[in-house]
Amino acid sequence: MSSTLLSRRDLTFLLHDWLDVTRLTERPRYAEHSRETFDAVLDLAERVATEHFAPHNRAADLHEPTVDGQRVRLIPEVKAALDVFAGTGLLASTLDESVGGLQLPHTVAAACFAWFQAANVATSAYPMLTLGNANLLLAYGSAEQVDTWVRPMVEGRYFGTMCLSEPHAGSSLADITTRAEPQDDGTYRLHGTKMWISGGDHELAENIVHLVLARIPGGPPGVKGISLFVVPKVLVDPDGTPAARNDVVLVGLNHKMGYRGTTNTLLSFGDGGHQPGGRPGAVGYLVGEPHQGLAQMFHMMNEARIGVGAGATALGYTGYLKSLAYARDRPQGRPLTAKDPATPQVPIASHPDVRRMLLAQKSYVEGALALVLYCGRLLDEQRTAPAPADRNRAGLLLDVLTPIVKSWPSQWCLAANDLAIQVLGGAGYTRDHDVEQHWRDNRLNPIHEGTHGIQALDLLGRKVTMRGGAGLAALAATIGATVGRARGAGGEAADLAGRLAAAMDRVTAVTRRLWDTGDPEVALANASLYLEAVGHVVIAWMWLEQLLAADAAAAARPDDELYAGKRQAARFFFRYELPRTGPQFDLLASLDRTTLEMRDSWF
Amino acid sequence: MSSTLLSRRDLTFLLHDWLDVTRLTERPRYAEHSRETFDAVLDLAERVATEHFAPHNRAADLHEPTVDGQRVRLIPEVKAALDVFAGTGLLASTLDESVGGLQLPHTVAAACFAWFQAANVATSAYPMLTLGNANLLLAYGSAEQVDTWVRPMVEGRYFGTMCLSEPHAGSSLADITTRAEPQDDGTYRLHGTKMWISGGDHELAENIVHLVLARIPGGPPGVKGISLFVVPKVLVDPDGTPAARNDVVLVGLNHKMGYRGTTNTLLSFGDGGHQPGGRPGAVGYLVGEPHQGLAQMFHMMNEARIGVGAGATALGYTGYLKSLAYARDRPQGRPLTAKDPATPQVPIASHPDVRRMLLAQKSYVEGALALVLYCGRLLDEQRTAPAPADRNRAGLLLDVLTPIVKSWPSQWCLAANDLAIQVLGGAGYTRDHDVEQHWRDNRLNPIHEGTHGIQALDLLGRKVTMRGGAGLAALAATIGATVGRARGAGGEAADLAGRLAAAMDRVTAVTRRLWDTGDPEVALANASLYLEAVGHVVIAWMWLEQLLAADAAAAARPDDELYAGKRQAARFFFRYELPRTGPQFDLLASLDRTTLEMRDSWF
Repeated sequence: MSSTLLSRRDLTFLLHDWLDVTRLTERPRYAEHSRETFDAVLDLAERVATEHFAPHNRAADLHEPTVDGQRVRLIPEVKAALDVFAGTGLLASTLDESVGGLQLPHTVAAACFAWFQAANVATSAYPMLTLGNANLLLAYGSAEQVDTWVRPMVEGRYFGTMCLSEPHAGSSLADITTRAEPQDDGTYRLHGTKMWISGGDHELAENIVHLVLARIPGGPPGVKGISLFVVPKVLVDPDGTPAARNDVVLVGLNHKMGYRGTTNTLLSFGDGGHQPGGRPGAVGYLVGEPHQGLAQMFHMMNEARIGVGAGATALGYTGYLKSLAYARDRPQGRPLTAKDPATPQVPIASHPDVRRMLLAQKSYVEGALALVLYCGRLLDEQRTAPAPADRNRAGLLLDVLTPIVKSWPSQWCLAANDLAIQVLGGAGYTRDHDVEQHWRDNRLNPIHEGTHGIQALDLLGRKVTMRGGAGLAALAATIGATVGRARGAGGEAADLAGRLAAAMDRVTAVTRRLWDTGDPEVALANASLYLEAVGHVVIAWMWLEQLLAADAAAAARPDDELYAGKRQAARFFFRYELPRTGPQFDLLASLDRTTLEMRDSWF
Repeated sequence: MSSTLLSRRDLTFLLHDWLDVTRLTERPRYAEHSRETFDAVLDLAERVATEHFAPHNRAADLHEPTVDGQRVRLIPEVKAALDVFAGTGLLASTLDESVGGLQLPHTVAAACFAWFQAANVATSAYPMLTLGNANLLLAYGSAEQVDTWVRPMVEGRYFGTMCLSEPHAGSSLADITTRAEPQDDGTYRLHGTKMWISGGDHELAENIVHLVLARIPGGPPGVKGISLFVVPKVLVDPDGTPAARNDVVLVGLNHKMGYRGTTNTLLSFGDGGHQPGGRPGAVGYLVGEPHQGLAQMFHMMNEARIGVGAGATALGYTGYLKSLAYARDRPQGRPLTAKDPATPQVPIASHPDVRRMLLAQKSYVEGALALVLYCGRLLDEQRTAPAPADRNRAGLLLDVLTPIVKSWPSQWCLAANDLAIQVLGGAGYTRDHDVEQHWRDNRLNPIHEGTHGIQALDLLGRKVTMRGGAGLAALAATIGATVGRARGAGGEAADLAGRLAAAMDRVTAVTRRLWDTGDPEVALANASLYLEAVGHVVIAWMWLEQLLAADAAAAARPDDELYAGKRQAARFFFRYELPRTGPQFDLLASLDRTTLEMRDSWF
């Protein structure tokens, strides 16, 4: 029986038939790899995710973390799974060999991580956060910081967090007030409260490495005065042995609707007033230069946001496969043509409305997975493409696609989970099946790492206008290249190419029209609609790409029904989904002021 | 401080400024009533809902029903609230005085019940189910059955259920197998298992009156051989005193994602084999004639489905008001024009994207509430309009609108709850706020009382084609009358009228095109899209009606900002929502076969 977490066949199609990842092994960074090592690591990810992560997915939901005095308690399966994960070395899959990494392409690593996210998004959050933390320190930390903090994280002994938000400062990071006082010994003492800190406290690891945004007194106001600090839960001696507990105190746990296996905490830094040496405050170590904290965080945000989109995709994907399995198994009702009640019931997968719900899910989750892997490929290009121009182009495209790869799966793979519940009907509404949990878990994704609205402002307010519109031009050129190939292929591909080209032309025209107003308030009023419409155009492009790849691959394996499925899902997306953008572009082009004119007293 | 359950001002507007319910008091059935009695009963509903239902909404979610041996345990607040409710007499608000009812118009009663649904949808489900049960027995039961079962239900001593589904027969009622063996004494003995029975067991009432669909051996197969039975949990002596326990056994509770305060059960009838008198089976009493069970159930389905739509609306409404209150209270970020980080933060309600999410919610929940009350008004017309033609017309319109009033709020007020979470951000994802629970609770509504897909088949496969299309023609004529009035009013109303007329023309044209195919499989393949598109047209109509009513009422109270809010929400719906139907109608008109051509092996 095939997995109901992800489809390995689809991953093979996307990685090899489409993205041709094996060609990356021609580059020095990946020279040690081959299709065989890629397959081996995917096998490993599937096996560990299936055997160690999936089995406690429901248990972690039913038994959320609790606080027993100062200690956070989780069900023991979480630590057991993470210990197995640490043994795989996968945490460091993309990192340099010099720090114990596997130097795996991001494209392949994203596919590996998707197995864990599909199996248990809450447990897999711990290594994802740790990896993000390690990446940041590798980019900006000193050699000593890498040795002290990154190596134990790579080994799975330490876990990491990101501490950005405060109770009064969520989306508005300009307003954080956590303070970092410089000390004579070059360290800092931090004072402040951090909110929504995932993985903020637990006993899963020997230590927790918090990366904390804070202000050094005297620095500039707003986001320009934010610096980044390493603040460990436990201080360590120069030789790495644990020393005193740092002044980082768990104030409380947040009780969430989903993602319940991931502790989410309110942390107090430096509130205890008891520090080794009698000095108050939590000991912190500056990362890089002062006042560069936000830029450092944002530099790493691309990967974190791809990670959120990948998690949303994985949840959508497993919900799709589970609802498909249910629909094939559950007899109910008869075809319209069978009027005799004595006719045997048929599986619900044969009812057109159920097929519509399955096909819609397929088009969302496979479209989203394609985008996630494509963005992984862009990370690889940005890092290893031989020509600097190609690296730049990849970076530019990645900048434009980041808000989309974060938001589109968060919206539409959540919609897929909604359809999965609907396919199961009453059964889908109960805890006897996984789909309701996936829906609850997935609901976090449009919120964390920058809400939908924040992504929309990022796309329309920054990414498509930056460098004189170079990002949008790069997107248009890249989509144009796909359109050109599809037109060359003729037939159905050419037909869909015409529709995609028209949609992309609308993106360009609407973007220009919005910014030609010279009025940012009007231009940005409907940024969320813009994000959604552009997202649908991008996924249509992903589907045209998949159609072309399927046609090419089918030449060698004409009987493989995977390709027929890809074609049908592409058709579905172009017929049922892409046309949704028409009214959205119309509204944007009308420079609608409905929300701007709405007064608070009218609600 | 105004309520965050519902808006009394909006109810006053809809009931009086728009639907002019006081005019109903000119009719004999409602002659004892007046605007004062209507207001008094609404006051009562608001007060009891606020004081007795809302306070334990979260507790009932956190502490779902459990089984202790054979006894179902709920938190005590549920029974306390229902005892207060019983004392209000509201259960029987619409019933005849002869059975202890208040003879309140359905329009007003729907508004009353909405308070309870907004406050605590799970606790209010018990009386809703009981009322549906009582209505069915009043319509089809014998005088003795009314005396024995309905009167104690009206008094709040007995509760009722509807037992339709079985483990292998959910949407497909043709396949139920529960068997009812006739006995010499005129009673029946039932054997079978019923699934998804809400309120199926508890100790909230002295008795539970199950209405059970079952087959009398020898009857026709399929839906034509289904009969309806009263099967009480506890048998009663002719004088009404409780006698032996009937052979109805709780097999288990379903554990749901939401609506957790409502017990949902798997019940076994006649499995115990121990009956008073030694005869096996659960004692049942036939309601009306044999083999009429499905018709009887369907006769009452209009009210049950309006009830589901009303519940979905109430959940959407309270989520909207709570997110509005939060957005006005929570400072975060600054206007685009304020570049200085020292500028004070503003409430998030002032950000255009948050206003968009609030306005969208307003347009969904107030549009849905208008439709719910309009359908209540149609029930009143059907029952009391002086002219038979008006009664027929109301019934016809109600038939067409029933799948829409059930489905549209279930889809879009759920979407409103999603937006309410998004307005609150991370806070909305925690149990510290109600909005996440509303979203979970509301997710049941597209499933129970006939799924979205079932409603779609009902609308396109039956309601718009019945009696030679008379239902659709009635809808078109009624919408046409609104369009005519709006055109007469000129200005903005006339503009919106033009768009509504064009959309309704598309409904008519698409319906004809679908059925002109002569191929039901193609016609019905996208029935769900048809339901959604027609639903949006109907809600646009509700908004044009509200706009006209607001304009008329504003003549007397020009400074009342309620009317400005109604106008802006109407604009929003016509600009942001109605255009969504364009691509849907295009797809339907294309007689798309994408889902029909999808093969199972292509998934």
